[in-house]
Amino acid sequence: MLQLRARDYNLTVGELPTGKRNKITDVLGLTVGHCTVDTEDHKTGVTVLLPCPDNPFVHKLPAACFVLNGFGKSLGMIQVEELGTLETPIALTNTLNVGLVHDAMVEYMVTRGETEGVPVRSVNPIVCECNDGGLNHIQLRAVGREQVFTALAAASPDFEEGDVGAGKGMVCHGLKGGIGSASRLIELDEKTYTLGALVLANHGSMKDLTVCGNHIGPQLDQAKAAKESDVGSCIIILATDLPLDSRQLGRVAKRASVGLARLGSYIGHGSGEVFLAFSTANPFDPREEPAVRQILSFHEEKMDLPFRAAAECVEEAVLNCLFTARTCTGWDKKTVYALLDLWNPEA
Amino acid sequence: MLQLRARDYNLTVGELPTGKRNKITDVLGLTVGHCTVDTEDHKTGVTVLLPCPDNPFVHKLPAACFVLNGFGKSLGMIQVEELGTLETPIALTNTLNVGLVHDAMVEYMVTRGETEGVPVRSVNPIVCECNDGGLNHIQLRAVGREQVFTALAAASPDFEEGDVGAGKGMVCHGLKGGIGSASRLIELDEKTYTLGALVLANHGSMKDLTVCGNHIGPQLDQAKAAKESDVGSCIIILATDLPLDSRQLGRVAKRASVGLARLGSYIGHGSGEVFLAFSTANPFDPREEPAVRQILSFHEEKMDLPFRAAAECVEEAVLNCLFTARTCTGWDKKTVYALLDLWNPEA
Amino acid sequence: MLQLRARDYNLTVGELPTGKRNKITDVLGLTVGHCTVDTEDHKTGVTVLLPCPDNPFVHKLPAACFVLNGFGKSLGMIQVEELGTLETPIALTNTLNVGLVHDAMVEYMVTRGETEGVPVRSVNPIVCECNDGGLNHIQLRAVGREQVFTALAAASPDFEEGDVGAGKGMVCHGLKGGIGSASRLIELDEKTYTLGALVLANHGSMKDLTVCGNHIGPQLDQAKAAKESDVGSCIIILATDLPLDSRQLGRVAKRASVGLARLGSYIGHGSGEVFLAFSTANPFDPREEPAVRQILSFHEEKMDLPFRAAAECVEEAVLNCLFTARTCTGWDKKTVYALLDLWNPEA
Amino acid sequence: MLQLRARDYNLTVGELPTGKRNKITDVLGLTVGHCTVDTEDHKTGVTVLLPCPDNPFVHKLPAACFVLNGFGKSLGMIQVEELGTLETPIALTNTLNVGLVHDAMVEYMVTRGETEGVPVRSVNPIVCECNDGGLNHIQLRAVGREQVFTALAAASPDFEEGDVGAGKGMVCHGLKGGIGSASRLIELDEKTYTLGALVLANHGSMKDLTVCGNHIGPQLDQAKAAKESDVGSCIIILATDLPLDSRQLGRVAKRASVGLARLGSYIGHGSGEVFLAFSTANPFDPREEPAVRQILSFHEEKMDLPFRAAAECVEEAVLNCLFTARTCTGWDKKTVYALLDLWNPEA
Repeated sequence: MLQLRARDYNLTVGELPTGKRNKITDVLGLTVGHCTVDTEDHKTGVTVLLPCPDNPFVHKLPAACFVLNGFGKSLGMIQVEELGTLETPIALTNTLNVGLVHDAMVEYMVTRGETEGVPVRSVNPIVCECNDGGLNHIQLRAVGREQVFTALAAASPDFEEGDVGAGKGMVCHGLKGGIGSASRLIELDEKTYTLGALVLANHGSMKDLTVCGNHIGPQLDQAKAAKESDVGSCIIILATDLPLDSRQLGRVAKRASVGLARLGSYIGHGSGEVFLAFSTANPFDPREEPAVRQILSFHEEKMDLPFRAAAECVEEAVLNCLFTARTCTGWDKKTVYALLDLWNPEA
Repeated sequence: MLQLRARDYNLTVGELPTGKRNKITDVLGLTVGHCTVDTEDHKTGVTVLLPCPDNPFVHKLPAACFVLNGFGKSLGMIQVEELGTLETPIALTNTLNVGLVHDAMVEYMVTRGETEGVPVRSVNPIVCECNDGGLNHIQLRAVGREQVFTALAAASPDFEEGDVGAGKGMVCHGLKGGIGSASRLIELDEKTYTLGALVLANHGSMKDLTVCGNHIGPQLDQAKAAKESDVGSCIIILATDLPLDSRQLGRVAKRASVGLARLGSYIGHGSGEVFLAFSTANPFDPREEPAVRQILSFHEEKMDLPFRAAAECVEEAVLNCLFTARTCTGWDKKTVYALLDLWNPEA
Repeated sequence: MLQLRARDYNLTVGELPTGKRNKITDVLGLTVGHCTVDTEDHKTGVTVLLPCPDNPFVHKLPAACFVLNGFGKSLGMIQVEELGTLETPIALTNTLNVGLVHDAMVEYMVTRGETEGVPVRSVNPIVCECNDGGLNHIQLRAVGREQVFTALAAASPDFEEGDVGAGKGMVCHGLKGGIGSASRLIELDEKTYTLGALVLANHGSMKDLTVCGNHIGPQLDQAKAAKESDVGSCIIILATDLPLDSRQLGRVAKRASVGLARLGSYIGHGSGEVFLAFSTANPFDPREEPAVRQILSFHEEKMDLPFRAAAECVEEAVLNCLFTARTCTGWDKKTVYALLDLWNPEA
Repeated sequence: MLQLRARDYNLTVGELPTGKRNKITDVLGLTVGHCTVDTEDHKTGVTVLLPCPDNPFVHKLPAACFVLNGFGKSLGMIQVEELGTLETPIALTNTLNVGLVHDAMVEYMVTRGETEGVPVRSVNPIVCECNDGGLNHIQLRAVGREQVFTALAAASPDFEEGDVGAGKGMVCHGLKGGIGSASRLIELDEKTYTLGALVLANHGSMKDLTVCGNHIGPQLDQAKAAKESDVGSCIIILATDLPLDSRQLGRVAKRASVGLARLGSYIGHGSGEVFLAFSTANPFDPREEPAVRQILSFHEEKMDLPFRAAAECVEEAVLNCLFTARTCTGWDKKTVYALLDLWNPEA
């Protein structure tokens, strides 16, 4: 399915070049899969990001979180902070479904481990969430084992954006939100590295919306704004092949907030903003014997490049979400409009 | 059921007086309930702590966490840190069951809310865990909706310690661990306040065990030590009726580590130590209209008393766990011994 | 001295009304004083903010910090985080002078305490810094006791912005930076509260500069950009009379980053961003006897207003800094240009 | 000067072997120097630890802090947390002297840099403190440039413990405290690594003192306890040659609290406990050109060894401090007794 994104309307963010797809999957090895639940009662789903083709439980990747606003229910951050590694795929879903999605992810890791000779007795799935209770009958918890396994099976470097997967019922800046992505290339020492972002965007208010510096919010029909200013959230996943360690990834994750601020958000009280960054470099296999091994380390004084890339990616990923998500009417008959149904970017 | 505890063997910890039960439920309004799963395959369960008789979703209590070792999968800490409140009961269970227990807690809060006219669209259950995979076939995730609702229904100010509820399959200092509790009274301005601890103890190694300063570990039969030195954890819940705010409760939570250190733990790599403290004073109902209300505030210079109480309670709660838990043989035929089966405290 | 600010050029930020002065001193009781060192070798100084007319050592105010980028040498944050209070004036200066300014602040507090019968044996001065080493011969450490006492004596609700005090040698977005301020009014329950910001702006690159959404950076003469992209920092002080507690003030402090991002910063590696927020409500006198007192508490669900105010204030304060700071030539003959010498806001 | 330490009285802590000196300087390359100020008015001083023979500004070492109780005024922690490196010697002194010591450390780094062709325009000295105001007329700030340079010049792998340098006026468990040290050897893959601790001990109350599990506090003459229970602090520096990264060093630093708890401390309100850990492996020179280099990385699953070593070292270092510090009468004629003047370890 062809989806027109911000650049298709000649809107660009920042100065760095994009990767081939301009998606997080420009980082080699990553795949993303969706399972959308679209019924009369439900506009919801689950999106999974597999960080590598290998079993991440024995191919642990350096990772870090930054919780900008902890009014959220995302799971797994404590261990990422302590051990500095990601050991499972990352799942995104609705707020009240994190338990069932956690359970499905445990089953996936246990089962995959049995198949691959990797016993799993303790595992730390990452499940992040936003609240889609405006469009989705969230209390019924429609996302479970079946949806998670479907999303995992569907994972591919090519994936849709907008109102799909976990993004199906999300609202962003009073408009239809959901999934968005972008990437940037970083040249260093004649090598090309990639940094990408995947967002689940469910934050912001319409009147504040600013597109590439253009404060368009007040021009939009405020009567059509979804009234969800303070039950939101925004989850941001950043990935890179730069050999950043956990501390450095935490620094990168902090820059995600820049992209949100430029779109007009002031990080509202009700908007749980949770960011996770990981690197595909320096995977760690805990079964290794030696106490000491060699790894690659990134020069701290060169961090401005990944910082700029993170800020640009996040701003463009949210824009791509707003450009691709379609108008949707929810279980209680309320309609949330697509940005392009209320605004003409070419006018 | 009568359970002999540390004080019944003339072992005392510290100098502060205990509450009536010498349990966390000496803090008025608290109740604790267990549901134990004891089958051929399973030695596991769930323990719930209800912080107040009211619906905690509209009777939010000041709270804070301290993660001493984040090698753990406990849920709900992010929001407690951000908003400084507890809005659900606290559930303790095994590592791989946190998802299903989370889902049951969501159902409980939604259903209770419907009954009481308190709509719930977003809620932050606290689910903490230790790994009982030595005695319990943990991959099968035996704790679910039924067990959680049974534990909630069983909640009472009087509750058992030892190998019950979430404590059924736990191992502490190589011996049978599980649930323990203790309390202390604090006199201030001619008023009596209470601080209590509830622990789920699954940490430590046998050789390090120190009882009231007596390093008994090396005297025990090391051949009988459960080989679980690095897949452990210890969850500690502290409650008080002192009007502490979230920041002060975080300071109190940090002192929980003192009790563990005195028993011989050095907070091992694999032992996820997560502490949560809350106060029953100054409940907050978000439905209140006024932007400003009056609350009670505790004098910062008097914090030594709750600090000392926390350290004493935690040390005694772990001891009470070790004294009450009984020898248990797990699903793979391995036996974990009760402390009193290997050591005579009166010798 | 009349200083034209952003609003004098019809540039407005956000939607909330400003206080009378549109400065942090619209919060009642606050005063700000500068001492500027302007010699052939030195373009530097010190700026002090007195949080209240009383001795803050026995009139401790609720406070919190947020360190967005810890590449900085600011002092005193550890205790603010632990105890949640501010107990001295806040001093801003250059990076290598924090020691001497700390010493002067200790002397001020000890001496004032002796005069007022408030013995001081331990005190936590807050000294924040940016690096003015581009314009100032910073290694000579020109700011000491005399300058600090001069600034304290000069403190007033009316104060200059731009290249004064600690701002004398600062560079912001490649242009002359320094001190800026702004304020916002918040209406709640028919009461009017105030929130204000004071910034010491020394961050950002010219090409990224964005004024009220207008990305003017690339239009400016890049050859005139001060080459200071990665030795910067930005200190932001937020004050309010809303009765926020320490945790809530920490949430407000986090929103300061929004203002910086909107001006084009991506929070560069070398830019130490340290934010401190305090409230003039609920002062605490540690000499009080009772263990429990009554204080005012702010409704968590109303936090969006101070969040929005913080974001707006910071963006406008940095703009005011850029509008008021004048072109300056430093000790090594390098010139840093004022924004208005390179750009006509009325064109 | 011969000093009898805990092991000379047959008191041992833990199970790991000690290094040759049983001091932090068993980690190769470390040196420690004192300058003591011992006059009628003053019982104070400064102690410096040089982490390597090279200029640490271009030989930055992996480092991390853990603030267990932030009621303290130590400087430099923010940058260590952000960048994960130590770039100067560490200085210990009294609370009100941190400013002057900071200034002297800046001068040392600038001057040394000029000599060695390493220009310094921004530098982050680490200055940690405890309050010696019981024995020392602290308000006069007797430690400055001269004392710091004297201590730096005196630095050696062999150094005294007890009432020397920064430890001159300190009080620990109501007894004469000050400087103490210990080390442990760690065998891994047929290599021997070292971990050592240096403490500045000024915390605890007499009645709680526990020596190797023996709760001797109540046996001591309480009338002779220095009345300083709540104006204390304890600074702990941990060093190792294990190739730990900043995150891992932060985990090690957290275990320092175990040693304090075992001696009877419950980490009192007034006792600022600040811990800093660094590694001599993987030094980083920011002048290096390549964006990526190779470093050594330590296996996360082997962290139990440095954790145990840290706990043991800290407990023994505080004991060594108590054994070596001598009875001292302060500026206001109050006497603080040495442990060995009140207790016979051989009885």
